Amino acid sequence: MSNCCEILTLASLCEFLKAHDNYVVLTHVNPDGDTLGSAYGLKMGLKKLGKKVQVVCCDEIPHKYDYFIDDSDCDFIPETVVAVDVADIKLLGDLYERFEGRIDLNIDHHVSNTRYASRLYLDADAAAAAQCIYEILDELGVEFDRSIANALYTGISTDTGCFKYQNVTARTHEIAAELYKIGVDAAEINRIMFDTKSKSRVEMEKRVLDGAEFHFDDRCMLMAITLEIQRETGCSRSDMEGVPPMSRSVEGVLAGVTLKENRENEFKISLRTYDPLDASAICGKLGGGGHKAAAGCTVIGTLDEAKAKILEAVKEALEAADAGSYTTE
Amino acid sequence: MSNCCEILTLASLCEFLKAHDNYVVLTHVNPDGDTLGSAYGLKMGLKKLGKKVQVVCCDEIPHKYDYFIDDSDCDFIPETVVAVDVADIKLLGDLYERFEGRIDLNIDHHVSNTRYASRLYLDADAAAAAQCIYEILDELGVEFDRSIANALYTGISTDTGCFKYQNVTARTHEIAAELYKIGVDAAEINRIMFDTKSKSRVEMEKRVLDGAEFHFDDRCMLMAITLEIQRETGCSRSDMEGVPPMSRSVEGVLAGVTLKENRENEFKISLRTYDPLDASAICGKLGGGGHKAAAGCTVIGTLDEAKAKILEAVKEALEAADAGSYTTE
Repeated sequence: MSNCCEILTLASLCEFLKAHDNYVVLTHVNPDGDTLGSAYGLKMGLKKLGKKVQVVCCDEIPHKYDYFIDDSDCDFIPETVVAVDVADIKLLGDLYERFEGRIDLNIDHHVSNTRYASRLYLDADAAAAAQCIYEILDELGVEFDRSIANALYTGISTDTGCFKYQNVTARTHEIAAELYKIGVDAAEINRIMFDTKSKSRVEMEKRVLDGAEFHFDDRCMLMAITLEIQRETGCSRSDMEGVPPMSRSVEGVLAGVTLKENRENEFKISLRTYDPLDASAICGKLGGGGHKAAAGCTVIGTLDEAKAKILEAVKEALEAADAGSYTTE
Repeated sequence: MSNCCEILTLASLCEFLKAHDNYVVLTHVNPDGDTLGSAYGLKMGLKKLGKKVQVVCCDEIPHKYDYFIDDSDCDFIPETVVAVDVADIKLLGDLYERFEGRIDLNIDHHVSNTRYASRLYLDADAAAAAQCIYEILDELGVEFDRSIANALYTGISTDTGCFKYQNVTARTHEIAAELYKIGVDAAEINRIMFDTKSKSRVEMEKRVLDGAEFHFDDRCMLMAITLEIQRETGCSRSDMEGVPPMSRSVEGVLAGVTLKENRENEFKISLRTYDPLDASAICGKLGGGGHKAAAGCTVIGTLDEAKAKILEAVKEALEAADAGSYTTE
């Protein structure tokens, strides 16, 4: 399948978008600010060119994104299928079977993209898929408005930790400047995305910090969000976002481990690392993967068993690093 | 004194800087990323024009800023005194008496500037004093290098919560884009400034959250960093930075109160508010002041007395807001 994936340039992508109509835009499971901001930004932009567009997600969209959700004008039969910010077709979740082999276009920024669509526009230098969408709408000559700006800013801001991470480039800031000129409600968006916690979240954080462990000369911090904590604090899935980066934020910590109990004896492990550790390689040993600084895996077993497995893998990496024999490729 | 303060344009400021030499650049007490980034950015820029510059601060400079501190070439007798990011001469701390009436130039971005210097360059639209320094060095034709970029980026990033706050403009992002082109170590800087906590800080946060109170239908959150907590967790002054914003980050909270016990029975109160509350007006009732969304005051008394005083002031404001009679001016 990957052999028949046509790689598009920005120009050929725009020709394709102009030549087609009646779009359905697919987002990934557990939708975040980037997949949603990209999808709705693209929808609003294409609508300005007279196209019909609907956005589809297999999961419910969290209410905090309401300010840019535009589900108007969806009464048409879809013809052209576009996936945005979806690196692997499995990330379509429940939509996977319905759309397998039927995706006409994939717009993405993940270097790990598995090329499952007929056509791919990939900009791996873009900090967010929403950055790609900005370039596309700009190339198409779309007149940006505040709603589009809010959607795209949300994607860029959430995927970069508000311009904090390594993936930001000069171009990311240039685009942000353009979105400000259009009147983006940036401070309000950032307040919703970064500075608003539920009381349940605060309670959960307290419980998780209470149980935090430090290992290997304080170079590894481990936190667990057990089902008990989830139940007793009433925290939601979205309340649990943003916990993994906390595990790496303590001075001297090179490996931050967060174990989230998904169901009895099943733990989703999130690993955040700093140089020289490679989170993807460490999680790879437990059947997972991801990026160098952020990766994950799922472990079946009790909390103690899950802890032991990931700590063993982290320990091996730290020992290899100490011995100077650690390679990150 | 305010009558004899000459207001400079960017052009006349640059003429002044070119015409003078042997600079001493003053920063404010409890130096932060902006006053330091501005001062050292200006120093490095003026050095490129062949000027001699030393930076002076009444307090010790925290080590986290080491990457842009340049204390070379300080062996000369100062002639020209410049204060940067210092809105009021009292903010010079122990340097106040030594420099009172002797400040030739003040470069600032605070609308509340008290015009204590002979000359003032004020850009109240700039998100940070470092944004002013960028414009000045650019106007002077200075060739930026990575060290200057790191200093100025630190000022901009720390004063905007990494581009998160209301004070950011399109111009702020345009300047960030230019600093990226020069090779600023932004991700590393942001990691140090925003994502690094000491273990003492984590312990202190836990204790403070444990004792957090909610009042007035959960519209007010109150946290106290008592001397006992400070002692038992061993947290430093810089560990306590960034606590006040936490008090306003819980959903539904309009007023976040943080009481820091400075000494037995003396509390520094930091108040963070959202519309329609006016933090400055509320703290004004207790002899303090500040901005609309962030203000402070100092209260003498026991913890319970200090709590009662600030809660009474917050309650009055909330009741006035409920009655529709709250004015924010």
